[in-house]
Amino acid sequence: MTDAYVVGAGQSDYGAFPDESYRSLFATAYEDALDSVPDGMDPDRIDEAVVGTLGVGGRQLGLPGPAVTEHVGLHGVPTTRVENACAASGYAVRQAVQAVKSGMADVVLAGGVEVMNDASGDAVRYWLGVSGETEWERLSGTTFSGVYAQMASAHMREYGTTVEQLSHAAVKSHENGAKNPHAQLGFECTLEDAVNAPTVADPLTLYHCCPTSDGAAAVLVVSEDVVEEFTDDPIRVAGVGASSDRVGLFQRETYTNVPASRRAGEGAYEMAGMSADDVDFAEVHDCFSIAELAAYEDLGFCEQGKAGEFVESGATRLDGDLPVNTSGGLKSKGHPIGATGAGQVVEVFEQLSGHAGERQLNDPRVGLTHNVGGSGGAAVVHLFEREEVAR
Amino acid sequence: MTDAYVVGAGQSDYGAFPDESYRSLFATAYEDALDSVPDGMDPDRIDEAVVGTLGVGGRQLGLPGPAVTEHVGLHGVPTTRVENACAASGYAVRQAVQAVKSGMADVVLAGGVEVMNDASGDAVRYWLGVSGETEWERLSGTTFSGVYAQMASAHMREYGTTVEQLSHAAVKSHENGAKNPHAQLGFECTLEDAVNAPTVADPLTLYHCCPTSDGAAAVLVVSEDVVEEFTDDPIRVAGVGASSDRVGLFQRETYTNVPASRRAGEGAYEMAGMSADDVDFAEVHDCFSIAELAAYEDLGFCEQGKAGEFVESGATRLDGDLPVNTSGGLKSKGHPIGATGAGQVVEVFEQLSGHAGERQLNDPRVGLTHNVGGSGGAAVVHLFEREEVAR
Repeated sequence: MTDAYVVGAGQSDYGAFPDESYRSLFATAYEDALDSVPDGMDPDRIDEAVVGTLGVGGRQLGLPGPAVTEHVGLHGVPTTRVENACAASGYAVRQAVQAVKSGMADVVLAGGVEVMNDASGDAVRYWLGVSGETEWERLSGTTFSGVYAQMASAHMREYGTTVEQLSHAAVKSHENGAKNPHAQLGFECTLEDAVNAPTVADPLTLYHCCPTSDGAAAVLVVSEDVVEEFTDDPIRVAGVGASSDRVGLFQRETYTNVPASRRAGEGAYEMAGMSADDVDFAEVHDCFSIAELAAYEDLGFCEQGKAGEFVESGATRLDGDLPVNTSGGLKSKGHPIGATGAGQVVEVFEQLSGHAGERQLNDPRVGLTHNVGGSGGAAVVHLFEREEVAR
Repeated sequence: MTDAYVVGAGQSDYGAFPDESYRSLFATAYEDALDSVPDGMDPDRIDEAVVGTLGVGGRQLGLPGPAVTEHVGLHGVPTTRVENACAASGYAVRQAVQAVKSGMADVVLAGGVEVMNDASGDAVRYWLGVSGETEWERLSGTTFSGVYAQMASAHMREYGTTVEQLSHAAVKSHENGAKNPHAQLGFECTLEDAVNAPTVADPLTLYHCCPTSDGAAAVLVVSEDVVEEFTDDPIRVAGVGASSDRVGLFQRETYTNVPASRRAGEGAYEMAGMSADDVDFAEVHDCFSIAELAAYEDLGFCEQGKAGEFVESGATRLDGDLPVNTSGGLKSKGHPIGATGAGQVVEVFEQLSGHAGERQLNDPRVGLTHNVGGSGGAAVVHLFEREEVAR
């Protein structure tokens, strides 16, 4: 089958932007993506668009996809809205890859957008809550912080993971986010800040939870037939894996980890002919710090149960053996639900093409993105490889 | 690229089912689809699922895809929810075709579901309204009936189309729906009934408007590599076309027709190497009778402006030259938003495999489905062909 490549990726700032609309945020990301294509791209080349969003905060629940593509002048281009809660645009990127590999499109725009910061906190809670399992979790009052706190408690009990270790993940991500001009919480924090912050859902403190964000991200995926028109430095989509699971945590086989992430990772590694050893850096779904630790294990970055020690060792810091969330992650960069998955690809694109500024890693070749919907009802993993090109 | 085939398709009844949930309706459609596979299908063969829904009436706004696939025992299978308002599952089928053609899946479940009949009429209006253009149409009080009434008025003014001609479409569809055991409004009506019914939005009467429906539909799409395991009578997806447009009618180039439908049809014909002359029968998106007439023109079934005469001639009746909406269409069969597109494929599958009961056409070979989101912000067209197989 045809290989798929990422030739451009861009994003808006993440944060709270009461003067922006979901359309203006998407337009910013889209223009940024077009501008990032090394040899340029005419918008007329876009054959298809895939837009991930949870529901743009209720502003346009039906047809939000065409609503954003028309705003950037792409009306007429087949546009599909996909949603898998917080993994919406990870799945949008996956669908773009399928569209290219199917031979039905040569150039696909995959992006995502969310506007969460309403004046009303109730609206925020509602729009987060609707991705939880409705019958047994949401309607009984369980929040996402609560579900992830249960995962953290289980991980601590089973493996001896500590609040300090969770906090190391937060400190590391804020360190990176402070170097990212797009980050919502672009400041550093200390281990003491994280440990001693107010409790959100025991054992998770404020610093173990990502913020509520507005933002957008966009990625341009093309086929191998046309990739040379756009760049001399192709970044290949080497592997894609996805899996679903029971939407409610209480029905899953384990509380400590995310089985859908494990299966998605295995699928991506198998398709790419790679293993975790091949990964130079990763963007993982750290909506809560426990999610980052679970991802280390689910994706094979460390042994099962050893994620606490792994993060404490500094292995996932910018100068470690396997930097994770170099962008700052959901924790520091922010988490505009529908934009997050595509936003992870923006970081991988920038790192692999050498444009990550102060966060730039030393000659990375393989980057992984890991995007989770809900508390693990959906997960999608991509592997991207910078190709050696004979010139 | 690999060809894609439909080997099974099923649906629930369409109607108002206060004792059913969106999950139970989807399960009915899924089991019906499995049962329809001529040589049987083990659910373990399903590699991927794509679920179309507008939002299952608010019951599960995030992750409704995994919520229905887990309910039928498919947790673990990659599941994507897609949405393009009333075209949600038409796009789900399209995505299934891309997944198969991409080589990333051999067997894909594509379906859709909606539960619209709440106790509260406000909820129904809300869930329909959210697919309209928000800023200029919905918030100013415009309903879908109103938008389509504007299209009808424009068509009448421009081409002399009459209320009687609109009514002929309704009479024809009710004639067919009366032969469909799954239909919500499975009764016949007369021209006088349709013309003289109460006005909903002038010039549209009650009989020019589809009902509010609960229901689900499911389709099984497979690759040519495995199709022979499931059937000796393969139905090939010969063509797929899709297009978007400005979400608001007032911003489009015409009020009389649906440009996205026209582009989607052209795309499907081009991919299939066919024209409208090759189509033996069609399921078109008749949310309002004017939409059916516009579709005749947009899909090339008759000349521009001649749809009124075309329907009046009886050409699209069950015994006409080009039967349209043999299922009863949205008008009589019903319109459970997210299920409608996949439900159209169910009718085509049943007709092409000779299982359409009292509605059975005489040896049809090529069927077309046409599914529209909103008032034309999205459209998708599929062409299905029963293959001649040497045995």
